[in-house]
Amino acid sequence: MLKTMSEPDKKEITPEEAPENGTRITNIGNTSKTVNGKTKDDFDLAAVYLSDAQYNRNIFFDTTPQAIRLYLLYNHWGLQILVYAFIIVDLALAIFEDPAVVPLPIWVTSVIELVCLAAFTARLVHYAKVIPRERFWKDPKNICIFVIILLSLVDMIIYGALKATGFYAVRWSRVLRPLLLVNITEGRQLRRAFRSIRNALPQILYVFLLFMFSVLMFSLMALKLFGKRDLKTTEGRPYFTNYLEIVFDLYVLVTTANSPDVMMPAYNFSVFFAVFFIIYILINTYIFMSVFLAVVYNNYKKYLKEEVRLLVRAKRHKMVRAFGVLQERKGEEEPVVSQACWNQLVRLVQPDISNAHRELLWSVSDDNNKGCIGKVAFVQLADLLNIQVIMMKSRPHPLQTWLPSLYLSSPSRLVCRMVQHRAFVYTYDLIILVNAVFIGLDEDDPLIANVEWAFLVLYLLEILLKLYSFEPRAFFSRHQFWNWFDTIIVITALIAMIINSALKLSGGYTSRQILDIVFILRILRLIRVVDSIKRFRAIINTLIKIGPTILTFGQLIVVVYYIFAMVGMELFKGKIRFSRLTPLIQIRHSVETPCSKTQHSSTQLLQEQL
Amino acid sequence: MLKTMSEPDKKEITPEEAPENGTRITNIGNTSKTVNGKTKDDFDLAAVYLSDAQYNRNIFFDTTPQAIRLYLLYNHWGLQILVYAFIIVDLALAIFEDPAVVPLPIWVTSVIELVCLAAFTARLVHYAKVIPRERFWKDPKNICIFVIILLSLVDMIIYGALKATGFYAVRWSRVLRPLLLVNITEGRQLRRAFRSIRNALPQILYVFLLFMFSVLMFSLMALKLFGKRDLKTTEGRPYFTNYLEIVFDLYVLVTTANSPDVMMPAYNFSVFFAVFFIIYILINTYIFMSVFLAVVYNNYKKYLKEEVRLLVRAKRHKMVRAFGVLQERKGEEEPVVSQACWNQLVRLVQPDISNAHRELLWSVSDDNNKGCIGKVAFVQLADLLNIQVIMMKSRPHPLQTWLPSLYLSSPSRLVCRMVQHRAFVYTYDLIILVNAVFIGLDEDDPLIANVEWAFLVLYLLEILLKLYSFEPRAFFSRHQFWNWFDTIIVITALIAMIINSALKLSGGYTSRQILDIVFILRILRLIRVVDSIKRFRAIINTLIKIGPTILTFGQLIVVVYYIFAMVGMELFKGKIRFSRLTPLIQIRHSVETPCSKTQHSSTQLLQEQL
Repeated sequence: MLKTMSEPDKKEITPEEAPENGTRITNIGNTSKTVNGKTKDDFDLAAVYLSDAQYNRNIFFDTTPQAIRLYLLYNHWGLQILVYAFIIVDLALAIFEDPAVVPLPIWVTSVIELVCLAAFTARLVHYAKVIPRERFWKDPKNICIFVIILLSLVDMIIYGALKATGFYAVRWSRVLRPLLLVNITEGRQLRRAFRSIRNALPQILYVFLLFMFSVLMFSLMALKLFGKRDLKTTEGRPYFTNYLEIVFDLYVLVTTANSPDVMMPAYNFSVFFAVFFIIYILINTYIFMSVFLAVVYNNYKKYLKEEVRLLVRAKRHKMVRAFGVLQERKGEEEPVVSQACWNQLVRLVQPDISNAHRELLWSVSDDNNKGCIGKVAFVQLADLLNIQVIMMKSRPHPLQTWLPSLYLSSPSRLVCRMVQHRAFVYTYDLIILVNAVFIGLDEDDPLIANVEWAFLVLYLLEILLKLYSFEPRAFFSRHQFWNWFDTIIVITALIAMIINSALKLSGGYTSRQILDIVFILRILRLIRVVDSIKRFRAIINTLIKIGPTILTFGQLIVVVYYIFAMVGMELFKGKIRFSRLTPLIQIRHSVETPCSKTQHSSTQLLQEQL
Repeated sequence: MLKTMSEPDKKEITPEEAPENGTRITNIGNTSKTVNGKTKDDFDLAAVYLSDAQYNRNIFFDTTPQAIRLYLLYNHWGLQILVYAFIIVDLALAIFEDPAVVPLPIWVTSVIELVCLAAFTARLVHYAKVIPRERFWKDPKNICIFVIILLSLVDMIIYGALKATGFYAVRWSRVLRPLLLVNITEGRQLRRAFRSIRNALPQILYVFLLFMFSVLMFSLMALKLFGKRDLKTTEGRPYFTNYLEIVFDLYVLVTTANSPDVMMPAYNFSVFFAVFFIIYILINTYIFMSVFLAVVYNNYKKYLKEEVRLLVRAKRHKMVRAFGVLQERKGEEEPVVSQACWNQLVRLVQPDISNAHRELLWSVSDDNNKGCIGKVAFVQLADLLNIQVIMMKSRPHPLQTWLPSLYLSSPSRLVCRMVQHRAFVYTYDLIILVNAVFIGLDEDDPLIANVEWAFLVLYLLEILLKLYSFEPRAFFSRHQFWNWFDTIIVITALIAMIINSALKLSGGYTSRQILDIVFILRILRLIRVVDSIKRFRAIINTLIKIGPTILTFGQLIVVVYYIFAMVGMELFKGKIRFSRLTPLIQIRHSVETPCSKTQHSSTQLLQEQL
């Protein structure tokens, strides 16, 4: 953690706090349109390069002032969220379309889909205005989105027409919907993951083929060993006589799902045949599956490293361009960027950055205090801006300002020292553990229900004491995850319990839903114990940090699942019906089959041992 | 691959081939007892240091000539194999002891165990004579073996006495047997693996505790959410009302073994309760189990790297000692080892090394051709000796020497060129594939049975053709794994088929066992196809290379399994009996339970959807 410096910079152009938006920047420092001979357009261009480097965007945009303004708008977080919202709505439509979980009339879903498609088209047109025309049509992403929109429209028209005339129709274009998630400009991470997987596939394929070869060889061996022995499975069917069935059975055996069952007829015939299955599991389940994992891990890592290397190079390239826009040359010396230009640029890119934070970044870049920085120092700016700086302002407690005599009195000081003592944390950990025991007991007992109120009061007291001894703004600062967690849970639990009690008192009736919420909140409160143990906190923090990566993979899984779900829905829709009694019994029988196999073979085994 | 040089070394002390044993070395080069002023004892000591470095032995032995000779005997491969043989016999005794798979009288197993214990004692006494007395008793390994032997003896006496007087007795010392595998001096690799696991445990433990905490929290939530709803499982038992049962059910859910079943009563009550189970599986199965794997992998790797670092340091240390023994100082210069001493040392350590190979190693060490090497070059010798050098002697084919006119005639040359052509390999790959199809067909058809003979002849022809065009000694050299594999399989198959046919012709009777062997050999022959594809060969070679490491882990698993098997055998011995009909039905019922749950819940679900 870096603490910001407190000494003010003498060369600061403006005494104002950081400006809120781009329009005010042009008037800063009374230089009207230029700073050190650079126009607002120059700064806009440099700022775009810088923020592209900062967020790893690789878009080849037009450098005309108008295109840059459009590009800035294109990258606005509001529009990006809007695009994702439309994609989610578009994907969620499957819930309301035929065959639907919640059926809606066909015109409603069609209108919503049309709105979504219009939004995607608008976004695409916007993008087309930002980048040069010939680049636009060379990019497969754009063509992909264009084709998806077009095919969806065609499909909607065909489907509508067929439905209106009473024909059978399939909404086949729904399969394409998740591809939008991959092809929009914001889907960079997802594309990178897909690319790494695609590049790793050949290596994985070879191990997979070798694994399949091994399964086929073992199946052939099983056919030859067991096929002629006239063995019967527990249902009386011939055992291991059909090659394809053996391959399927042994393939399932790799997952150990049918582990003892598949072996039992052979085992009952001779104990030594178990050796065949043990060797099979050793080779295929243990060795090949482990090699599979190792190959996937190694190759994915290798190609992802390659992607990161390319990213770093692109980032450097963009920063060099930004430097080229803002550089000043003084005679024969190396070109430099002055602090005034630098300040202007940083304020454009991050309007909410504090003066102290900006000064800190400058002092890191300009470590010799020359008032200007060269190319090497400038290029680091994108990374510097990405470093999270936590500001620790040691402000006095508000009570100290309002009631200094009371707050600084010795009993008040004692309270503060107590709260800040380790024993305070341990005491509350103990309270949480006792609470856990009480939660486990029967809550219908009125005594235990009342004890819950006592715990709630204790938790409220803890928050109030902490607010008393720590500065409230520091306590509720952005990075204090557990404080926020605690407070929200305790307050929500308080509200839910009050509502519950009010309901109980008024009508003698308890809402099960509210009780559920109360119970869940009570148990969530116990999680806090994790924060007291340093090692646990480290693991949790690591998990939170890899969250965004997991989210990317979540999207990847959504894409794959959605496509399979759509295809499966259209394939199996209406194929399985349970209108008569006979098929039900058949299905019941087939569900029973794998289990009864185990059970019969086990009993056979037992009977043999008698 | 390094090819050995052919030019002879002028300074070679002896024109003889490498000597077979240590006793002849003293007379080499007519220097009677010394080479460059170093006695045979010096060479023995240096050789012991060198071979210790080469095989990563870390034994602090006595440096007296007598102790060194004992130490050389102690490290003899024959004795080492003998120790492992006794351990295997000792471990295998469990099969013949009460409760036994193959019962033997108690006096037989006791005598065998006594012989084994005597062997271990002898080995321990031998070791005690090699290393200093005070070192011996400080090493926990030795104390461990001593205690195991002592406890085994005590247990045998007590068991024998109790059995003789008709009391109930337990052979509790059998649990200790696998510990011998870890504590013998040859169990270094195993101890290293155990040490790495032990060091990695604390890190793993924290993740495990956090995981258990998560399971306990979810169980508490499940108790509160479902316990009061009066839900019933498909067997009519109350659903999720007992906390410990919930913990067990949810723990099993992490393995997804009871995945839909455990959820069904709640799912039937409300579809939204599925969210609870989905979140549970996401957090515990996917995130925690993956973190678990990552932590185990990372920590094991870290500590193993540390072990390897220590090994490398110890190796260097030993080589420096060996250098100290053999070094010669010429005035003010750095101490060196002369080539004569070096040759003597290498011949002592690896008597079967060829002159050419030794010269190659010397030329690598003495790259300036000074006739002597310094410390830095000498220290590398242990690693140099571990490099596998494949000798490619381009000898003429024996037929060329015997019948040069025939072998060098143009038809003979054409055959050689054909066999060495790629198309030859492809042709035989095709033959193997066709063979695979024929194997899959019904072998009772006489046509197919005869085709098998044709294939066998084709394979024999392949081997003969290869022996004709390649030099036989090169074809059957040690590293030609696939040639050996092919030849052995084809010849064995030929013999088995001939025996089978002879039996059939003589008595009209086919031995099922011989047929099984024939079938397995036929299928094994198909594996050869793998060798033709480069990528597959690379994967197989990698798997073969990690074989020894897997073997170490195999021993580790044997140790753990054996202990659990022994404890489990003594605990559950005679507890479960199937003499009456009632318990059998009960067991059958309990086997049925997990499955019928699925099936009932599935049918309930189906009925609801009607």
